[in-house]
Amino acid sequence: MVRIAILGQGLVATHLAVGLERIKSGELEPIGVPLDRFEYEIPVGRLEIVGSFDVDPRKVGKTLYQVAQDMLGGQLPVPRSLEAVRVERGIHAGSVKGLIPGARGLDEELGMEEAVEKVADRLQHLKPDVVINVITTEKAEPFETVGSVRERVSKGLVSASQAYALAVLRYAEREARRVALVNAIPAPLANDPAIVSMYESAESLVLGDDGATGATPLTADLLEHLAERNRRVLSIAQFNIGGNLDFLALTLPEKNLMKEKTKSSVVRDILGYDVPHFIKPTGYLEPLGDKKFVAMHIAWKTFNGLEDELVVNMRINDSPALAGLLVDLARISYSLLERGYKGTVYEVNAFFMKNPGPKEASNMARITAFHNLVKLLQGLGALNTGINGGQP
Amino acid sequence: MVRIAILGQGLVATHLAVGLERIKSGELEPIGVPLDRFEYEIPVGRLEIVGSFDVDPRKVGKTLYQVAQDMLGGQLPVPRSLEAVRVERGIHAGSVKGLIPGARGLDEELGMEEAVEKVADRLQHLKPDVVINVITTEKAEPFETVGSVRERVSKGLVSASQAYALAVLRYAEREARRVALVNAIPAPLANDPAIVSMYESAESLVLGDDGATGATPLTADLLEHLAERNRRVLSIAQFNIGGNLDFLALTLPEKNLMKEKTKSSVVRDILGYDVPHFIKPTGYLEPLGDKKFVAMHIAWKTFNGLEDELVVNMRINDSPALAGLLVDLARISYSLLERGYKGTVYEVNAFFMKNPGPKEASNMARITAFHNLVKLLQGLGALNTGINGGQP
Amino acid sequence: MVRIAILGQGLVATHLAVGLERIKSGELEPIGVPLDRFEYEIPVGRLEIVGSFDVDPRKVGKTLYQVAQDMLGGQLPVPRSLEAVRVERGIHAGSVKGLIPGARGLDEELGMEEAVEKVADRLQHLKPDVVINVITTEKAEPFETVGSVRERVSKGLVSASQAYALAVLRYAEREARRVALVNAIPAPLANDPAIVSMYESAESLVLGDDGATGATPLTADLLEHLAERNRRVLSIAQFNIGGNLDFLALTLPEKNLMKEKTKSSVVRDILGYDVPHFIKPTGYLEPLGDKKFVAMHIAWKTFNGLEDELVVNMRINDSPALAGLLVDLARISYSLLERGYKGTVYEVNAFFMKNPGPKEASNMARITAFHNLVKLLQGLGALNTGINGGQP
Amino acid sequence: MVRIAILGQGLVATHLAVGLERIKSGELEPIGVPLDRFEYEIPVGRLEIVGSFDVDPRKVGKTLYQVAQDMLGGQLPVPRSLEAVRVERGIHAGSVKGLIPGARGLDEELGMEEAVEKVADRLQHLKPDVVINVITTEKAEPFETVGSVRERVSKGLVSASQAYALAVLRYAEREARRVALVNAIPAPLANDPAIVSMYESAESLVLGDDGATGATPLTADLLEHLAERNRRVLSIAQFNIGGNLDFLALTLPEKNLMKEKTKSSVVRDILGYDVPHFIKPTGYLEPLGDKKFVAMHIAWKTFNGLEDELVVNMRINDSPALAGLLVDLARISYSLLERGYKGTVYEVNAFFMKNPGPKEASNMARITAFHNLVKLLQGLGALNTGINGGQP
Ligand SMILES: NC(=O)c1ccc[n+]([C@@H]2O[C@H](COP(=O)([O-])OP(=O)(O)OC[C@H]3O[C@@H](n4cnc5c(N)ncnc54)[C@H](O)[C@@H]3O)[C@@H](O)[C@H]2O)c1
Ligand SMILES: NC(=O)c1ccc[n+]([C@@H]2O[C@H](COP(=O)([O-])OP(=O)(O)OC[C@H]3O[C@@H](n4cnc5c(N)ncnc54)[C@H](O)[C@@H]3O)[C@@H](O)[C@H]2O)c1
Ligand SMILES: NC(=O)c1ccc[n+]([C@@H]2O[C@H](COP(=O)([O-])OP(=O)(O)OC[C@H]3O[C@@H](n4cnc5c(N)ncnc54)[C@H](O)[C@@H]3O)[C@@H](O)[C@H]2O)c1
Ligand SMILES: NC(=O)c1ccc[n+]([C@@H]2O[C@H](COP(=O)([O-])OP(=O)(O)OC[C@H]3O[C@@H](n4cnc5c(N)ncnc54)[C@H](O)[C@@H]3O)[C@@H](O)[C@H]2O)c1
Ligand SMILES: [Mg+2]
Ligand SMILES: [Mg+2]
Ligand SMILES: [Mg+2]
Ligand SMILES: [Mg+2]
Repeated sequence: MVRIAILGQGLVATHLAVGLERIKSGELEPIGVPLDRFEYEIPVGRLEIVGSFDVDPRKVGKTLYQVAQDMLGGQLPVPRSLEAVRVERGIHAGSVKGLIPGARGLDEELGMEEAVEKVADRLQHLKPDVVINVITTEKAEPFETVGSVRERVSKGLVSASQAYALAVLRYAEREARRVALVNAIPAPLANDPAIVSMYESAESLVLGDDGATGATPLTADLLEHLAERNRRVLSIAQFNIGGNLDFLALTLPEKNLMKEKTKSSVVRDILGYDVPHFIKPTGYLEPLGDKKFVAMHIAWKTFNGLEDELVVNMRINDSPALAGLLVDLARISYSLLERGYKGTVYEVNAFFMKNPGPKEASNMARITAFHNLVKLLQGLGALNTGINGGQP
Repeated sequence: MVRIAILGQGLVATHLAVGLERIKSGELEPIGVPLDRFEYEIPVGRLEIVGSFDVDPRKVGKTLYQVAQDMLGGQLPVPRSLEAVRVERGIHAGSVKGLIPGARGLDEELGMEEAVEKVADRLQHLKPDVVINVITTEKAEPFETVGSVRERVSKGLVSASQAYALAVLRYAEREARRVALVNAIPAPLANDPAIVSMYESAESLVLGDDGATGATPLTADLLEHLAERNRRVLSIAQFNIGGNLDFLALTLPEKNLMKEKTKSSVVRDILGYDVPHFIKPTGYLEPLGDKKFVAMHIAWKTFNGLEDELVVNMRINDSPALAGLLVDLARISYSLLERGYKGTVYEVNAFFMKNPGPKEASNMARITAFHNLVKLLQGLGALNTGINGGQP
Repeated sequence: MVRIAILGQGLVATHLAVGLERIKSGELEPIGVPLDRFEYEIPVGRLEIVGSFDVDPRKVGKTLYQVAQDMLGGQLPVPRSLEAVRVERGIHAGSVKGLIPGARGLDEELGMEEAVEKVADRLQHLKPDVVINVITTEKAEPFETVGSVRERVSKGLVSASQAYALAVLRYAEREARRVALVNAIPAPLANDPAIVSMYESAESLVLGDDGATGATPLTADLLEHLAERNRRVLSIAQFNIGGNLDFLALTLPEKNLMKEKTKSSVVRDILGYDVPHFIKPTGYLEPLGDKKFVAMHIAWKTFNGLEDELVVNMRINDSPALAGLLVDLARISYSLLERGYKGTVYEVNAFFMKNPGPKEASNMARITAFHNLVKLLQGLGALNTGINGGQP
Repeated sequence: MVRIAILGQGLVATHLAVGLERIKSGELEPIGVPLDRFEYEIPVGRLEIVGSFDVDPRKVGKTLYQVAQDMLGGQLPVPRSLEAVRVERGIHAGSVKGLIPGARGLDEELGMEEAVEKVADRLQHLKPDVVINVITTEKAEPFETVGSVRERVSKGLVSASQAYALAVLRYAEREARRVALVNAIPAPLANDPAIVSMYESAESLVLGDDGATGATPLTADLLEHLAERNRRVLSIAQFNIGGNLDFLALTLPEKNLMKEKTKSSVVRDILGYDVPHFIKPTGYLEPLGDKKFVAMHIAWKTFNGLEDELVVNMRINDSPALAGLLVDLARISYSLLERGYKGTVYEVNAFFMKNPGPKEASNMARITAFHNLVKLLQGLGALNTGINGGQP
């Protein structure tokens, strides 16, 4: 069993929980789980969610079954087996101030230092191998140096993701075991040299940052497509609009900025030159729900100096896309821990993350990243792609 | 110098001729030439068009300058240096019957066997290293076996492309020199085992078939993008409409069928399963000219059984896109010939062609194909991608 | 009660039957029924389907409930009340030859003349006020003159729609009552002077032809939008692809041609000049089902000679759109019959039909047509649009 | 002659100036001028630009020819006849603070009261019949009551548009002549009861506000299209991005808000109910220049409760579209003044403006508005639409 603890029981986490149980019961095919078209050493059926933390008063204390019924009940069958896990109170650090009325965390009661220890206690009890961070996008300043951590914590100058990252470390140290933290949100953890080095010292792993779903990895592949033909990109416009809590959160300017950064970095990294671009989560429109609308316009110069253009429009279910990736991230983390990997692993981040850590690493075409990932996992003996060697 | 002869002085060939001269004079950057973002052993400036064949009475006998003025004069500056080459009469084999009034070939005068010899004579005079086939799309039955060739020729049962392929061979044999034929149209040459084996025997090269520009390679990359995330594609619709002679030709059902075949093969090859699809050059609309309109719809299942969809719309200059690829195909052919390659070379075809030969070979994601191509050329010492090893 | 008989119990007819019952039971709002945002003298609840004719062996003999369960059961709740009506055998006239295996009509047993009388018998029994034609698109040559009718029938040279039109007339004559035939398919009935004059003599009504849903009326409004700003339209491309039986039928060239005609007429009628265009039902793609995909490209010249362009992409449920219009067409027909209208009525056709009869009439912007329709019905006292007089 | 003075010699005004001269010289057809498909009592050739005001130091003092060369020279032929008019310094009122370095107005030298008188002096000299306001979008608080005007001016609490509106009035009073002010920007003039009543007293006209080009009138017609079929709109998203100074200005939040207001009002006015929507000028992307990119997504419920959706993408030349409308607005203003119209005229505003004055008036479908406009002008004997009475 790969034991998983969740931070932030929102849409992504709930799709993950529901989807996992439906796959286990045979009711659903593991579509959307990248490695599932090959044979992986850990089948999806061996993943198990054992705990969950949130700060929304409408969720804390409820079972995953109740939470899933509330969020997805009208749309999908929710398995009864989700009654086994109950959402606990996590660390708030102001992450949803102004967004979720009545949100409250352990830190508001106990102070930040104690709250971190309290979460570590709970993790000792739940014994996860992998912790997945899918809380609401929040602003976070990287620690940069290990030396600055203690002071920032004592002054309460940490974001929720940072506090959780430290709690996971405390848990690893106390139990003297390896743990993996998968950070699927834009807060810089795998891009924070201090965090990475602390995880390295604890023989643990931090993967991140910001799960690569939706328009960003598609843009990466489209730009790579143009770069390979040596077309000169002139401009890129990309709009995103949706009606889930995540989009609502991104209407707050500081959260939006966090997202814009991870989204924009792709352009220069792939083309090798700068291009004027407008790439942002653009707005909130409640009736769209979790199925966002994306519009993209790219113009370029072709041979003989003429101009071409491309428009992409998408309707995509935002949260299940990330949930499918998290299935693989959980089992890959497990395999890597077992083989002694620590710190962070660029080959994994490069495919799965919008802002792949470590800090100095850059984006690459996803297709290239995918082949590198497959090669790594084959080399470890974790992945069997069949006769054609993973070549599609 | 790499000496190039053209078959079919249409839009593609004319963009190639004009673009090459403009690049040489420094007036134009070699945008749209894939390898030009790296350093290639043969600079673009070393390519030269030395001859051209056509059957359109409005072109035969004119200089490339006159032809280019007629076709592109309103849109682009046409270099005077194109006065040096004059279009000669080629082999018709009925390729534009019903399309171009008054079209006539050497075969109509001399019979097919003589016509082939006559073209070989002319090639001996022009001394091309590379011959590029960009005549109008035509129906062609592959020879399949070398044994059947002579009889088919004597009965006149060959398409124009096949006749040219044989003339190029005759030229190679007579001169005892290596020649490359680049087939950018759907007629199966690099996919015809008989042709490939004859070229192999003559130490010559045939690359093809059907240049991969426009919607097809983009579709390949989009499908690869979905496949890597293990999304289950449900349906693919792709429409193409344009106003150039090529689109007009494709309103003739048998020509359309040739194109549909090379366009559709991509789906199964990349996804690994069949998907209902509609992928065709769809229509002719004169005012669009060479800037075609493409619309594409792809639907798939994502994690947790939900459905996503993607729409792509493009306005792209059809012919310059292929012209840019031909620049690289010409110089790659030259490099390969020099290093003793013969028959056909899948690594080249896989990136540049819609229906990459040899016959049994299949399509792959273009991005993968590109990396394989780069690796081959680096291995040969022909390509220098700089410090980052060709990784964008 | 307005009593309705159906010809062709396909997707459109079944959406009509299911939707009507759901509206009556209060489970569904009458969205998609144009006049329902005002007050109409006949509420939707007063419409009733009393009979249905088809030739598909999988439908004939079954109740509407069974048919609806088969077609829509997975998607919508099917009301039990539909058990009251059973599908009867109609006239085939070869309309689905090659499309529906085993299709058979009364004409194949009794000959065409007898078959027409037999259907008239059944109508005398069912006593409909309105008969709605929604059989598969079929090729039909208009009679043009009343004199030619008898001979064409005796020789069996009539299409199914024409045979039904005659059966409805026979029923009207025998009962000496007024009846309305609503022709929602492209076969020319309201555009056939012979049919219109026969209906006029029988004090009856024929409305048609080809229900205006989907891309065509939208195109009409977009073109009107451009015309009002005096922009010069340069080209129009419109693709339609779907996965229902109707799209499958349109892959047969002669059926496609019938549809193309009614779709294309809109361009000249609205702009007042000809524009190169490509407007066709383009293909069949089974997984799209009844939710078709439409792509449209329109380019025009604006002030100062510059060029603009517009792309429209739609996913629309094809059949419910027509079903919603049929609700209004049925009750408008009834109101018009009551007030002595006969022959055909352009003001109604102009809004509801792609090819509005009578023959010599042309298309107009739908918004204009709508205002004319509203004015007509207000004048009759049938429609009450509230204080603002129907002005939105 | 209809004498025209310009406020704000930007892209719109320059397209107007260049286009008018090109039409007069016969080099250009009056495409994009709505009434030009009919016969209007004042031909386009009778319009003449006699003066122009700006505050940009790169424009003030230059001839229209020089300004047009700088702005459009690379794209269009600029007529020499534009040398006859020179740009003069206008009133700044801070309208481009932070946008145009070095911008300076008469008010900065003379104070606001004097500056207004100075502009009135200049207008007495230029003798325009119509003054057109196309300065940069600016924030403006309506006066609401005539009583508040004097105080606001003396305190300098007026926007540039308001100051110009007062200068035009002073000119009208001093000369005791009727003048028309056409306000094509979002600042509320025709929607300000105080301004309208002052113009009424001066027997003059103010038309406005905010010229209806681009996505807004198209959205109006699309919504009317849906409303007429009684489809229930669920959500509307509309993105606009461009690279001209106007888009740059709209990245300043307070200017953006002015635009969003006039853009959003359309939804409720046309549908008759509120719908969640996101309609905003979204961003600035320099390489797009004046040819903006628009993306729109509309979802609705159709008959039987199913959901449809529509996506519109456009590339449109922003400024020429408004310039074409201004041609008609100028000559209509003249005709109305001649016939004694004063204050504002809703029938004109309703078609040409995004936020049609007077204040209490609402939006309507443009097609309806167009027919009302045509009727008004026919009634006045100003417009002759030919035999078919303006019905397309
Ligand atoms: N495709 C995707 O959906 C996608 C892609 C990349 C990244 N992400 C990121 O994943 C995260 C989750 O997305 P979502 O759609 O599930 O959002 P969501 O808003 O539905 O869920 C977030 C959950 O986190 C909880 N939360 C907030 N602060 C918390 C805290 N301090 N401690 C514990 N719980 C907390 C909230 O109460 C909520 O239940 C977001 O940050 C988003 O940016 C999502
Ligand atoms: N992006 C692209 O344009 C693209 C991509 C893939 C393949 N192709 C293929 O390239 C070819 C050329 O495209 P194009 O746009 O230049 O078309 P084109 O119609 O403009 O040019 C074809 C030219 O070939 C000439 N020709 C026809 N039959 C001939 C013969 N038997 N001998 C000599 N000349 C002959 C014609 O007279 C014409 O000048 C087409 O077959 C097309 O399918 C083009
Ligand atoms: N939005 C729309 O769906 C739309 C718009 C305009 C016109 N139409 C027309 O409406 C018609 C029905 O569309 P649909 O989607 O329901 O198609 P469908 O194929 O689902 O239904 C047609 C039905 O007619 C039956 N039929 C065929 N020939 C018959 C005959 N001779 N007698 C009796 N029944 C016969 C078939 O068995 C089938 O049940 C088509 O002709 C279509 O072109 C549809
Ligand atoms: N389709 C359209 O372009 C469109 C549609 C509706 C409304 N508008 C409005 O029309 C106006 C003009 O658009 P544009 O594209 O020409 O913009 P622009 O920025 O190119 O031109 C504005 C001009 O006004 C000048 N200006 C600014 N403040 C001034 C002042 N106080 N006095 C005199 N001149 C001043 C600027 O220097 C500039 O030359 C904008 O307000 C825009 O919102 C444009
Ligand atoms: Mg999400
Ligand atoms: Mg071409
Ligand atoms: Mg249908
Ligand atoms: Mg503008």
